[in-house]
Amino acid sequence: MGKAQHEDNKVKQKTSEFSLVRVKSTWKRRLGKKLNKDTAGCVSAAKIYESVTEKGTTWTVVSPITFTYKVTETQGLLDPSNDTLLLGHITDLQQLEDIKKSNKPIKRFVVTDQEVYKIYGPKITKYFEANNVLYKILALPTTEENKSMEMALKILDEVNNFSLDRRTEPIIAIGGGVCLDIVGLAASLYRRRTPYIRVPTTLLSYIDASVGAKTGVNFANCKNKLGAYIPPAAAFLDLSFVQTVPRRHISNGLAEMLKMALMKHRGLFELLENHGCMLLDTKFQADNCAYGCKAASQATRIAITTMLEELAPNLWEDDLNRLVDFGHLISPALEMEVLPSLLHGEAVNIDMSYMVYVSQESGLLTEEEKQRIISCMVGLELPVWHEACTMELIQKSLQDRLKHSGGLVRMPLPVGLGQAEIFNNTSYEILHRAYKKWCDELSVSSDGSSDH
Amino acid sequence: MGKAQHEDNKVKQKTSEFSLVRVKSTWKRRLGKKLNKDTAGCVSAAKIYESVTEKGTTWTVVSPITFTYKVTETQGLLDPSNDTLLLGHITDLQQLEDIKKSNKPIKRFVVTDQEVYKIYGPKITKYFEANNVLYKILALPTTEENKSMEMALKILDEVNNFSLDRRTEPIIAIGGGVCLDIVGLAASLYRRRTPYIRVPTTLLSYIDASVGAKTGVNFANCKNKLGAYIPPAAAFLDLSFVQTVPRRHISNGLAEMLKMALMKHRGLFELLENHGCMLLDTKFQADNCAYGCKAASQATRIAITTMLEELAPNLWEDDLNRLVDFGHLISPALEMEVLPSLLHGEAVNIDMSYMVYVSQESGLLTEEEKQRIISCMVGLELPVWHEACTMELIQKSLQDRLKHSGGLVRMPLPVGLGQAEIFNNTSYEILHRAYKKWCDELSVSSDGSSDH
Ligand SMILES: NC(=O)c1ccc[n+]([C@@H]2O[C@H](COP(=O)([O-])OP(=O)(O)OC[C@H]3O[C@@H](n4cnc5c(N)ncnc54)[C@H](O)[C@@H]3O)[C@@H](O)[C@H]2O)c1
Ligand SMILES: NC(=O)c1ccc[n+]([C@@H]2O[C@H](COP(=O)([O-])OP(=O)(O)OC[C@H]3O[C@@H](n4cnc5c(N)ncnc54)[C@H](O)[C@@H]3O)[C@@H](O)[C@H]2O)c1
Ligand SMILES: [Zn+2]
Ligand SMILES: [Zn+2]
Repeated sequence: MGKAQHEDNKVKQKTSEFSLVRVKSTWKRRLGKKLNKDTAGCVSAAKIYESVTEKGTTWTVVSPITFTYKVTETQGLLDPSNDTLLLGHITDLQQLEDIKKSNKPIKRFVVTDQEVYKIYGPKITKYFEANNVLYKILALPTTEENKSMEMALKILDEVNNFSLDRRTEPIIAIGGGVCLDIVGLAASLYRRRTPYIRVPTTLLSYIDASVGAKTGVNFANCKNKLGAYIPPAAAFLDLSFVQTVPRRHISNGLAEMLKMALMKHRGLFELLENHGCMLLDTKFQADNCAYGCKAASQATRIAITTMLEELAPNLWEDDLNRLVDFGHLISPALEMEVLPSLLHGEAVNIDMSYMVYVSQESGLLTEEEKQRIISCMVGLELPVWHEACTMELIQKSLQDRLKHSGGLVRMPLPVGLGQAEIFNNTSYEILHRAYKKWCDELSVSSDGSSDH
Repeated sequence: MGKAQHEDNKVKQKTSEFSLVRVKSTWKRRLGKKLNKDTAGCVSAAKIYESVTEKGTTWTVVSPITFTYKVTETQGLLDPSNDTLLLGHITDLQQLEDIKKSNKPIKRFVVTDQEVYKIYGPKITKYFEANNVLYKILALPTTEENKSMEMALKILDEVNNFSLDRRTEPIIAIGGGVCLDIVGLAASLYRRRTPYIRVPTTLLSYIDASVGAKTGVNFANCKNKLGAYIPPAAAFLDLSFVQTVPRRHISNGLAEMLKMALMKHRGLFELLENHGCMLLDTKFQADNCAYGCKAASQATRIAITTMLEELAPNLWEDDLNRLVDFGHLISPALEMEVLPSLLHGEAVNIDMSYMVYVSQESGLLTEEEKQRIISCMVGLELPVWHEACTMELIQKSLQDRLKHSGGLVRMPLPVGLGQAEIFNNTSYEILHRAYKKWCDELSVSSDGSSDH
């Protein structure tokens, strides 16, 4: 706020800074930063600045809101003896004890993907029955095509009929990223904010949608055009859901994992390079089996912690320089262009594959590093090239980004394996040379694998 | 977060605290609070706590988001030479200069109340024309009955067609509280948050809806059941809009002003007591006229600053002990019960009137103070009693509040003129005696004034 005290040449202004001090039931403005010691415990982190000019009075309110949420990896989440799903979001130990002692039954509203319900419905039902919960399970066709405000309103109607207590009865979402995104938005709107819990059932949502604060629905043919940045009270992650996910959707999740590897973690890259195929074959279930290797839990754990590192300081995406945008500069346009033939992670991977060529052409990656990355992608059964990803589409996407990113393209590029930086001045020549090389080297090899 | 380090008896856990440090383009976790001096500038306010138990790993993310917004009282907001409406929300002086120097025309999407447009349409149009703005004005019937997600989506459709730049082209809302609430919600949803500007045109929205962070629409027959806590980039207040507001709607706004007076400001109470009638007669336009008194600007200014004091430290209403809830314990049920015969402020006033009797019955107000308050209400042409406000309705409302307020009723009550405290243990006897006295003394006198 130093700027508010700046003396504008044209408009002479006087700015006063007020702190807010709690006095019994009321808040009082107090001029200046220095406050008596005895009020120390009751000073808000918020500030009000008042500036008076001949044009009028301006109050500037600066008010911090702190979001606290949990991401918990656990096993046997639907095991009736595991109380994580019901109580794991509670941070206040006193409250937790009170609930455990009380004999008031717990009440929960659950929304789940219809396909997930087909497989896990009996287990979910049994879990709530065994724990004596008053529950309602709403199973919906939460597909990308249905990811709309309409479906959010349908959920809200049912939530409202169920009449839950907005403060103590979080809404539970169990499903892939689509289900989690819609339910998150619905909950965030209900009474201006009702806590919700995310239980991801796909690999993609396990390592990505579950970890951050974003919710959303599609609108006017645009992906996630409406939404909010409200994190869940908690995300509960149980890898065993992934065992029933189709192989292509596991590759899809691996793309976002590879993104974090390329941007931030060489060890994760090497894990995917060496064990990617096994992870696909075993659907991330091999930790406790004959393979005797912990690749699945190691890979998910690194993906989650690196993702949290980037998200926690930038929960509302106010900082536009974001490594997590890697693979997301060209892919949104590509994904919409060829809908529904590419899954999100597949489009992301094609974007990343091209960007790897841009890095190499810029001298940021060696030819050998580039080769290793592309081979790894192929090993993860991800497409590395697509004919719809034309030079025109690339240029248009980067220009759009320029417009929405405050005039800079802010292009994350790998600089070695597991390291990246953000660049703003990549020339058209480099983009074009990289494009040519990318097509020359990959257009044939991809033809076969891209129509899975 | 002290609690996270607490050693639970049942689950032995080890919690580590991580800070987040910016290293070039990436964020890195660093164990512990003590960090090198040289990283001081790049440490995020966010934290990640990691705790490992035999049940699994939990990461707790604590991430503060700071909201900054302006509330500006100005004159001649629609005067083409006043650039407040176009540029007044900008806090970065460099950005401001750049815009002023650039010859790119400014682009703005404006939503306004149809009735307001009938009166101020030509002035609004002229303002944007004169300033060479690329604009679209959407005039809608933003009535309480239409305050729905449907109307928000209609606005969003038009916003999307207009294709504005989400970072630099705020959506402008010009109207009463209904219009401001719907547009605020629509903007908050668009691309997960698009800045918006509030221009209140009623007295109620001038001192109340404009000052805080709440947005909302009605849903399933409940007031503001869906919404968000996202403050505008700025609220620009010009009292001259109020000159065309119907007298009853000015009384309506005076009720919320009286609320702040009774809770926090004896001077404001005395202003309303002495000049209330003049303020109504002159529609808050007398400051520069023959009366020679500044009551209008003084009253609005005190109402705004006292409101800001209570809102800034509690922007998301996480603290349930709120003086601003005075008049809002019984009134929501009353308002819905008799819809549409009472305006919001009228229902609030009836609630406050009863609570004044509760205060007096509890020994918190003298008989004389009580009389002065009721007389002041009558002077503001506000109803002080209503037959639909029965003892049953009162009890039901207080019980509902108990449920949604963490088990305590948290009843704000005046304790003298312009002071208040929050009470949790008012007995049924007192509530009932107060009710009887309230009916005895006010039911007749109100009969005449309540059917305006
Ligand atoms: N909020 C965020 O931060 C974020 C991050 C990444 C992606 N997303 C969103 O997530 C969505 C993609 O998520 P997704 O890939 O999980 O898609 P999805 O939710 O559509 O699930 C993919 C498919 O798998 C099925 N499925 C889900 N769980 C299953 C299981 N355990 N067994 C068998 N089948 C199962 C689903 O029915 C669906 O057909 C996109 O809409 C994207 O925008 C959000
Ligand atoms: N967000 C908040 O913090 C907050 C606070 C208080 C109230 N509200 C909401 O505000 C709404 C009530 O606001 P309101 O009283 O302004 O109602 P309103 O918006 O319905 O306006 C009242 C009437 O005055 C007309 N009008 C508006 N400006 C006028 C002008 N300058 N001249 C002539 N006529 C004019 C309108 O067309 C309408 O008929 C409620 O929906 C309430 O929930 C919100
Ligand atoms: Zn993605
Ligand atoms: Zn109110």
